[in-house]
Amino acid sequence: MSGNIYDTMKNNILKGKKGIIFGALDSSSIAWKTAENVYNEGGEFVLTNAPVSIRMGSINELAEKTNSDLVAADATNLDDLENLINIATEKFGKLDFILHSIGMSVNVRKGRHYTDLNYDWLTKGWDVSAVSFHKLMQSLFKLDAMNEWGSIVALTYIAAQRTFPNYNDMADNKAYLESIARSFGYIFGKEKKVRVNTISQSPTLTTAGKGVKGLDDFLNYAELTSPLGNATADDCANLTVSLFSDYSKRVTLQNIYNDGGFSNVGVSQEIIDKLNSK
Amino acid sequence: MSGNIYDTMKNNILKGKKGIIFGALDSSSIAWKTAENVYNEGGEFVLTNAPVSIRMGSINELAEKTNSDLVAADATNLDDLENLINIATEKFGKLDFILHSIGMSVNVRKGRHYTDLNYDWLTKGWDVSAVSFHKLMQSLFKLDAMNEWGSIVALTYIAAQRTFPNYNDMADNKAYLESIARSFGYIFGKEKKVRVNTISQSPTLTTAGKGVKGLDDFLNYAELTSPLGNATADDCANLTVSLFSDYSKRVTLQNIYNDGGFSNVGVSQEIIDKLNSK
Amino acid sequence: MSGNIYDTMKNNILKGKKGIIFGALDSSSIAWKTAENVYNEGGEFVLTNAPVSIRMGSINELAEKTNSDLVAADATNLDDLENLINIATEKFGKLDFILHSIGMSVNVRKGRHYTDLNYDWLTKGWDVSAVSFHKLMQSLFKLDAMNEWGSIVALTYIAAQRTFPNYNDMADNKAYLESIARSFGYIFGKEKKVRVNTISQSPTLTTAGKGVKGLDDFLNYAELTSPLGNATADDCANLTVSLFSDYSKRVTLQNIYNDGGFSNVGVSQEIIDKLNSK
Amino acid sequence: MSGNIYDTMKNNILKGKKGIIFGALDSSSIAWKTAENVYNEGGEFVLTNAPVSIRMGSINELAEKTNSDLVAADATNLDDLENLINIATEKFGKLDFILHSIGMSVNVRKGRHYTDLNYDWLTKGWDVSAVSFHKLMQSLFKLDAMNEWGSIVALTYIAAQRTFPNYNDMADNKAYLESIARSFGYIFGKEKKVRVNTISQSPTLTTAGKGVKGLDDFLNYAELTSPLGNATADDCANLTVSLFSDYSKRVTLQNIYNDGGFSNVGVSQEIIDKLNSK
Repeated sequence: MSGNIYDTMKNNILKGKKGIIFGALDSSSIAWKTAENVYNEGGEFVLTNAPVSIRMGSINELAEKTNSDLVAADATNLDDLENLINIATEKFGKLDFILHSIGMSVNVRKGRHYTDLNYDWLTKGWDVSAVSFHKLMQSLFKLDAMNEWGSIVALTYIAAQRTFPNYNDMADNKAYLESIARSFGYIFGKEKKVRVNTISQSPTLTTAGKGVKGLDDFLNYAELTSPLGNATADDCANLTVSLFSDYSKRVTLQNIYNDGGFSNVGVSQEIIDKLNSK
Repeated sequence: MSGNIYDTMKNNILKGKKGIIFGALDSSSIAWKTAENVYNEGGEFVLTNAPVSIRMGSINELAEKTNSDLVAADATNLDDLENLINIATEKFGKLDFILHSIGMSVNVRKGRHYTDLNYDWLTKGWDVSAVSFHKLMQSLFKLDAMNEWGSIVALTYIAAQRTFPNYNDMADNKAYLESIARSFGYIFGKEKKVRVNTISQSPTLTTAGKGVKGLDDFLNYAELTSPLGNATADDCANLTVSLFSDYSKRVTLQNIYNDGGFSNVGVSQEIIDKLNSK
Repeated sequence: MSGNIYDTMKNNILKGKKGIIFGALDSSSIAWKTAENVYNEGGEFVLTNAPVSIRMGSINELAEKTNSDLVAADATNLDDLENLINIATEKFGKLDFILHSIGMSVNVRKGRHYTDLNYDWLTKGWDVSAVSFHKLMQSLFKLDAMNEWGSIVALTYIAAQRTFPNYNDMADNKAYLESIARSFGYIFGKEKKVRVNTISQSPTLTTAGKGVKGLDDFLNYAELTSPLGNATADDCANLTVSLFSDYSKRVTLQNIYNDGGFSNVGVSQEIIDKLNSK
Repeated sequence: MSGNIYDTMKNNILKGKKGIIFGALDSSSIAWKTAENVYNEGGEFVLTNAPVSIRMGSINELAEKTNSDLVAADATNLDDLENLINIATEKFGKLDFILHSIGMSVNVRKGRHYTDLNYDWLTKGWDVSAVSFHKLMQSLFKLDAMNEWGSIVALTYIAAQRTFPNYNDMADNKAYLESIARSFGYIFGKEKKVRVNTISQSPTLTTAGKGVKGLDDFLNYAELTSPLGNATADDCANLTVSLFSDYSKRVTLQNIYNDGGFSNVGVSQEIIDKLNSK
């Protein structure tokens, strides 16, 4: 995995572009891969994560590799966001790209079933996973921190459209997040020519993902359903790079599935065959 | 309007069915019309609303007309919900139908723009408009209060899918509400054979709706776009009755547009012509 | 099965309504059940099917049971359609409801794989399964044969949205059919106040369905995925009745899933568990 | 316009990739811009169009500029397709990308209203606009002409999802085309690791588009609705390049809106304001 930084494409398609990348924990993180690929493509950025995630992970190593500053910020805290954006814009001037790769459900972590939710925990997870995206964009908007034709991307999951076992209140958080992308994206587009999209990614075995009950089984199901197989963290990083680039200048308010085709498959013959193979 | 109770269909399609109807404020409310039509169709119910809404509106009159009990309940308060459900089930036994017609945004009321939201108000509106639906279903589920083949309906709006001016954080609340319908609907269906759907209704000139900035202009736009014109509160009441009835027993997890066709129109010739008629 | 006619709901919700029902072959047909239920609800209709289907099936029995006339018509033949409509309107005056339940793929019948289609057969199946719906509506429109607030329903399948094994070119036919519903529905709504919708039905073990390779396996998969189980032909008949009724007057251009929730489920725990139990 | 070839991005992201580009008529064509941009990015291709389109347009000029061979082919003719693919693969070996940018409705050209269609013309337009995409993929598949991780893109329009005035039977053709992308895309992905997507492009003032009644008015409506304005032919060419590149390797079966945000806007304030200013 650590070799990835040398293997990716290097076409300089982000040359001159500056931004902020949220949510890299360790080398299995989608945000980590994205940072590597953005760096390889000539982009520069500030890395950020919550203080606790910085302590638990190895983001310092990534900052070193990519010659990036690391700024701790709680994405639910408006002061932290303002401080982060100010640091980034003082260094770079206005920004060209933002990656929001943040999500967490206390109810999932604590094993509460969807029919027995704790509502304080629900509120906390919603704030971290979804409202943080609004807070981030509101802060960027108020500080006039984005360049025209800038690109903001948040990561989401198809549980926002269809129900999956164990995804719990994260499904509702992702639906809210995607709605924010449309609601704020309209205004950010109209007033600042900034595009806002979400990528709906295959289930991915990140350190965060490893905590989700039954993820292995589900990864296997998705792999057998998707004609091209599950999209990897690297695939997601590459697609994110293309959404940050000028190749997608007028794509906005969209939720783009990076899932090997999963979203448009009813059921695969492999799944049917396996069910029948008793 | 008050004559409506005599004009609706009376086919007894809800004979023997019992339920709870949330959100009738006055005779312009969709929930009010629904209560009238359910009554005409042979259904029985408890009416409920928040204490402040009971004081501001005329729901007592509706309770009288429909021989219904009225129980005050704050739909964000778990104790209130439990008390309400207990009263209803003591009277009726298990329940067959529920209407959730509740929505409110403090940011909209106080005129805060979507790029300048107050996050305490955001949380309040989200709790009232969306989380209340989860709290309601969690309470019904824990109390085992629903009959098999019961039907739960919540009202929503197409702003959950596409962005509209001035709908503000209500768009995100409705997206969250619709996601709850799918997430909880799966479990309620699987374990209790209860269906859960949302109706995405045309913009409607209720007392609540009257407060939304620019609603008249938008109603006019929607009327000119929808081939059958905007669905009225009466239309919504009728569709809700059919979703409570046994005619739709296996329709679940769906968001059904009751909008005169608006949702599947790109633009109408009338709109194009009006724009050109300068 | 034959007892069905006595078991359904009889609320007279179609009293006074007249129409045409296409596609009843035998008592397992959705159109057959629909005819029975419409009859029970007070509706009157002409039954029709292609001459070959009339010979192969037992529709005469249904005509007798429901006091209906039977008129042979090839739904791809404009003269046949005109003749049929004229017979119906001479008997009834203008019409209130139409059921289009017609579909057939020569490539499926002859076992041609989707990567090896015969294009003459493709054209034939498209004409029968999809264009026939346009021809029918164009004929009704030209003959001004529909009453205001009339209702036209065609049956479809979720393969129009997502790909399923073995459904072959029928998937594309259904996508075309659903598009016709929107395209013609707009005009029929605007000019004649007629609504046009499709019902996307669970896989159903009709005589036609029995010919589809692997249908049993797929029925089983869908049953395990749908929280309320697969919708039956009777469920579809009931939902169709409600779409013919005045309870859904402003629902138009919609595709309504009658599928026990299947369409909004990503995967069920049952499927995951069965896959793991090997 | 002719200067475009020098203005586009040149990052070599298609270096070493070979393909076929259908549908360039003149310098206003999306396929023309795409050919220019693919060339600038290091890709090589065979150009093709129908004989009549070659005579009417100026594709020879494009072939010269991009050092490409031009092969006449009727995309509805299986022999022509086979000949074309054979010429391309003899020159290049297996192919990496295909652009299908073909559409035509005889009913639109001849001014037939959607309620008065000529069905022979309907069939002709369907064959050219939609079935040609199946014929093309079936030919590529049978000849095993695509490299692993190759990319096939067809252009479509949002009328496949929502109804627009004057788009007529092209709406239904586009719905069929998009369904083919899913149906064939599944198999092409599973068996050959080839991805298949459609781009749903803003209305674009190409030579073909100029023939559509009311296109100017509609372009203006779309421009006022889309927060980033209508996507241009150049924008579409750039997005197509990114879908041909390795940045989107696991995006498949998708319909991607390149429309400045149009598809997820209910209505814009500008439209409401203009309607009110009369």
